[in-house]
Amino acid sequence: MSANTSLLDLYLDATIIANPVERSTVIQNIVNVLKEYSLDKKYEIKMSDGVLLLLTVENGSLSAVLRTHLNGLITLTLEEGSSSSFLTNICSSNEKVLQGVEELRKRLNKAVQKRVDRIPILKRGLEVPNYFSSSDERIFEYDFDKLVFQADSPFQNVKILHSPTFGNTLFLDDLQNLAESDLSYTHGLMKYGELSYKDQEILILGGGDGGLLHELLKEKPKFITMVDIDQLVVDACREHLRGACFDSLDKLKGDNYEVIIGDCVKKMDEYMKEGKMFDFVFSDLTDIPIATEPEGELWKFVKKIVTMALQVLKPRGRFLSHLSSKGEDQDTMLDRQQPRSQPFRKLLEGNG
Amino acid sequence: MSANTSLLDLYLDATIIANPVERSTVIQNIVNVLKEYSLDKKYEIKMSDGVLLLLTVENGSLSAVLRTHLNGLITLTLEEGSSSSFLTNICSSNEKVLQGVEELRKRLNKAVQKRVDRIPILKRGLEVPNYFSSSDERIFEYDFDKLVFQADSPFQNVKILHSPTFGNTLFLDDLQNLAESDLSYTHGLMKYGELSYKDQEILILGGGDGGLLHELLKEKPKFITMVDIDQLVVDACREHLRGACFDSLDKLKGDNYEVIIGDCVKKMDEYMKEGKMFDFVFSDLTDIPIATEPEGELWKFVKKIVTMALQVLKPRGRFLSHLSSKGEDQDTMLDRQQPRSQPFRKLLEGNG
Repeated sequence: MSANTSLLDLYLDATIIANPVERSTVIQNIVNVLKEYSLDKKYEIKMSDGVLLLLTVENGSLSAVLRTHLNGLITLTLEEGSSSSFLTNICSSNEKVLQGVEELRKRLNKAVQKRVDRIPILKRGLEVPNYFSSSDERIFEYDFDKLVFQADSPFQNVKILHSPTFGNTLFLDDLQNLAESDLSYTHGLMKYGELSYKDQEILILGGGDGGLLHELLKEKPKFITMVDIDQLVVDACREHLRGACFDSLDKLKGDNYEVIIGDCVKKMDEYMKEGKMFDFVFSDLTDIPIATEPEGELWKFVKKIVTMALQVLKPRGRFLSHLSSKGEDQDTMLDRQQPRSQPFRKLLEGNG
Repeated sequence: MSANTSLLDLYLDATIIANPVERSTVIQNIVNVLKEYSLDKKYEIKMSDGVLLLLTVENGSLSAVLRTHLNGLITLTLEEGSSSSFLTNICSSNEKVLQGVEELRKRLNKAVQKRVDRIPILKRGLEVPNYFSSSDERIFEYDFDKLVFQADSPFQNVKILHSPTFGNTLFLDDLQNLAESDLSYTHGLMKYGELSYKDQEILILGGGDGGLLHELLKEKPKFITMVDIDQLVVDACREHLRGACFDSLDKLKGDNYEVIIGDCVKKMDEYMKEGKMFDFVFSDLTDIPIATEPEGELWKFVKKIVTMALQVLKPRGRFLSHLSSKGEDQDTMLDRQQPRSQPFRKLLEGNG
């Protein structure tokens, strides 16, 4: 099953598009090029700021929407059904790849004498979802070939997809969490090689995939306590993410670790009352949002976690977390006595 | 300037779409949901295998193409101009992100009672191209904010774009080559830490960005010869990719290196005639295509390069290159006496 969408963007001078006569000429040039591909104009809407044209081949199996925009942009969106092979053929991974649409791009370039960008073909109707986004809505395309597991817990949608490149990969509410190939991610979170965990007391907030637990257990810690709220995540990863957790989730309690299914905020409250403290606290919870200023509900949650975590750290204890970065170097470690990390400092300011 | 495209894919049973009555009901349900967003049907095409509908809001600033596909797929493609804010608003990176289109997705999900996938919003009309593809036509979205350099050489289009995340990034014919942040790529190519280059004679085929040259020079080699065909690449990188090449391209000849602008195939021919040999040959040329079988023009070129490189290697010399991988572990090093690398072995088989 396949259906493909191809986006071409033509960049003209805004003055051309604003002038109805010049615009008509350009549109006609483009329409002439499309006619060579048997795409004929079927419908036209005059908008206050330009035109929108629907073009299709005779049987409708390939269609195109051409529209002008105020600023000189003309967008062309080509879509095909399974009985068309214009876009489908050019998706095959041989040397003729893209010959069709790339040729069209070049012809349009020639017709309008301006920049024409082609956005890579979007493949629709896949057996398994393969397009996901970053937290700032950037697209990622994967090569997942199998839905391994899917279920809804009281907290979230839990999905595990298989990729020949990354192994099984965990998604929570359609956000990428961890793939079996992500050892370097876990090592980054641990500052592997820089910090020693030998004989240390460690608290993991979240971490239900078991990847961090497994790697930390190798370091001969005194004791690891992991608190994850979602039994379903732990169960799914135990079975389907073994390349990350290995046997660390097979038993929820061992000589030097315990996995607690529960709310880590409540658990930290208990520790604060008991006076229980740790050498390391890892926050392996939700993604920290990408933002220039820490605002909103999710940031409030992050702030709460960081503030509480600092309360259950020994005087020289350390808090470690993952951070997304927009290019600046960001420290992902917070020292109990020297909170030097820029984003964390911003977050904690005014926290009394 | 902005224009956005949002793709929603609805997965129904093929039997529903094949049955004109059931299909009509489903389409009507979807049209009813879209009507709530002021999208009204403007044009309909009956195709041999289904229907295609064009819907727009009154002034045309937001439009949608809804089409059925043979296998039960219904695609919905929403496009907006700059005077619409339905998609634009939801692209801002605050907590309301995607509320609009995600809400629409959920409503559609409810209306059709089946899987509805949303492909992340495509942003069109950007100042700088930000969508590029892998060699197997998978989409990548970047955060480039400035076109630093662009020109055509006799060999290729040379483009350098700036990203706050990756620094300046070199593109050759719109294929990503090297970013200033790609030190780990260069280290991977060198097998940094595993191999010693001290007092070694090294030949670099290609490598015009200077990244590999700079890193190898740090290792105190006896002599490095680099042969790149494109003067423009070397000149552009010297000026704009200094985070990768540093000062290594400032002079084309030093005590222990020389940069030759020329055809590396001809140069290797000369070396073969002279009997000149190297301890290491790096192929830092074009991407090796992703393919299960080495076939086609590009593979012929790769085969030629590898075959010639082996002829100018000392008996214990080594050939190193980058490889794309589809999940298998692939060795990127070829030992003159033990060509153990799977893809290279395949390539060289039958080469007499």
